[in-house]
Amino acid sequence: MIILGIDPGTAVTGYGLIHVEGQRLRPVDYGVVRTSSELPLAQRLSIIYTHFAQLISSHRPDVVAVEELFFSRNARSALAVGHARGVALLAAAQEGIPVVEYTPLQVKMALTGHGRAAKEQVSYMVKLLLRLQEDIRPDDITDALAVAITHAHVGPDLELLAKGEIL
Amino acid sequence: MIILGIDPGTAVTGYGLIHVEGQRLRPVDYGVVRTSSELPLAQRLSIIYTHFAQLISSHRPDVVAVEELFFSRNARSALAVGHARGVALLAAAQEGIPVVEYTPLQVKMALTGHGRAAKEQVSYMVKLLLRLQEDIRPDDITDALAVAITHAHVGPDLELLAKGEIL
Repeated sequence: MIILGIDPGTAVTGYGLIHVEGQRLRPVDYGVVRTSSELPLAQRLSIIYTHFAQLISSHRPDVVAVEELFFSRNARSALAVGHARGVALLAAAQEGIPVVEYTPLQVKMALTGHGRAAKEQVSYMVKLLLRLQEDIRPDDITDALAVAITHAHVGPDLELLAKGEIL
Repeated sequence: MIILGIDPGTAVTGYGLIHVEGQRLRPVDYGVVRTSSELPLAQRLSIIYTHFAQLISSHRPDVVAVEELFFSRNARSALAVGHARGVALLAAAQEGIPVVEYTPLQVKMALTGHGRAAKEQVSYMVKLLLRLQEDIRPDDITDALAVAITHAHVGPDLELLAKGEIL
């Protein structure tokens, strides 16, 4: 199974593709899509959409995983994330790929076994589980890989589906 | 000139196409895109995107106008609006159509000459300016037509462009 994790943002969107076979996880591709704040918003969204449409068409992930928004964030940043998230999810929908969503708590639990784990702990576990030699920068990539790994760990649990966790 | 006004939302997105010739405004098409909350989010966004892609391809508007978000709204609703707004703006960007944004204040000023006009006043003016016989329901359509009319009134003012009002 191939899982595409996404951490969307208008300026920087992180993505991470992982391959799952039994207990074994393998990184396939990861990186960021950056768009210049000097471009019109609609054009920035077009860049993000095109990137994901190409990524999905090249790698044919079985599922797209995104983190549920942290609602203590302010409305302005939620709107900006929503713009980018909307076009990334559209790219998945157009290829008929299901989208699953996990809360930050579920991600921390899945990666570290501890719901209040520090960012560094999550980052450490992503590196360890994917056997990466290099540090991953920026954090947007770590977050995208973390939500993909979360799905690899808890996705098979059908109870989650029954609870309506699928977007 | 043809202007497409949009009032985006995940559940209900209003749209209004108007034709402008000198001082004369004429409604071309207006309505709403509704998506069921029982569908997965990505599929709802796909419905909204497809609708706007078709609308833009049929009517070839010269510009798309949207209202700037009201940031006193909470983060959850801003995210939901952002999702829908993102895919509607994408449909415009993919056809190379510029997107302009107006604040609620600019819309009220342009429609009624008064920045604190009541919703009913704006609705009354939309009906009057477009010579519509019928009442427009729901409000999402009125809001979409109102932002399109705003661009018809103030769009030619190049000072606005210089102020970076274009998205």
